[in-house]
Amino acid sequence: MLSSDDKKKYMQLAIKEARKAEKQGEVPIGAIIVDPEGKVIGTGYNRRELDEDATQHAEMIAIKEACKNLGMWRLIDCSLFVTLEPCPMCAGAIINSRIKDVYFGALDPKAGACGSVIDLFTVEKFNHHPHAIRGLFHDQCAQMLKDFFRAIREKQKAQKLAKKTENN
Amino acid sequence: MLSSDDKKKYMQLAIKEARKAEKQGEVPIGAIIVDPEGKVIGTGYNRRELDEDATQHAEMIAIKEACKNLGMWRLIDCSLFVTLEPCPMCAGAIINSRIKDVYFGALDPKAGACGSVIDLFTVEKFNHHPHAIRGLFHDQCAQMLKDFFRAIREKQKAQKLAKKTENN
Repeated sequence: MLSSDDKKKYMQLAIKEARKAEKQGEVPIGAIIVDPEGKVIGTGYNRRELDEDATQHAEMIAIKEACKNLGMWRLIDCSLFVTLEPCPMCAGAIINSRIKDVYFGALDPKAGACGSVIDLFTVEKFNHHPHAIRGLFHDQCAQMLKDFFRAIREKQKAQKLAKKTENN
Repeated sequence: MLSSDDKKKYMQLAIKEARKAEKQGEVPIGAIIVDPEGKVIGTGYNRRELDEDATQHAEMIAIKEACKNLGMWRLIDCSLFVTLEPCPMCAGAIINSRIKDVYFGALDPKAGACGSVIDLFTVEKFNHHPHAIRGLFHDQCAQMLKDFFRAIREKQKAQKLAKKTENN
């Protein structure tokens, strides 16, 4: 059973992963997986653009690493911490890998598959139902994304202005 | 636009991939991806047990290969052929990679995310809506799975009987 301090520590590690994405110009999303003893067995950050691979989300990379580290595809009683609500692909991978608890920070009203758009974890027919804990460090995770997209918009605006000035 | 003969040819290639899984003791599921010109740019078969990796479904492997081959994460106007209805993870990856058409063989009443349990492709809020074509070579694909699971049951039965005989 994870303590409140543990949960904070693990989400801060996921945020640290997200910062690695940000530094490389990727949307800042990070994830980590911990085993039942609290050992970090998987980490990942969004690398979709860096790798030009639609499947390279933070959670997928962390799940693959955790499977490799445990030497098995079942991540029984493991917990996943991720800075943004998982999309359908990642929520599906969480179900497939039998992860028990999923802590996420910011909600995703456009693609969230753990309650925001749909809730894959509560579909009765599926053979595993992870437990979702929503909104851990919500403000910090959401702010990180807002800041990233604002910086992009400002950069685009500055580029447009520079082009306009050039043409005049 | 793919002709009827093309579709048959591509689904037979997906079945050929599934046979590779079967030969290695994996549940026989295979997938291929073709670009708008009809060139095969990704292939994959289920390797979950072989790789001890919950994400190693046929579709995921094919999508990763196609992204690598095209050098981009968007598989615009590409088609995916798979012998079994995609699960939520794979249906999510199909949405994320912007695949246009998805042809699948057997239905999956336990985990199918393209109509059988849920339908991720028709969720209005998602930013891409692949077109699903259900039941191409349905009988052949379904039979392949039935034969595989029957053979496993018979093997287990024989092992039980051998153990019982040993103990008597």
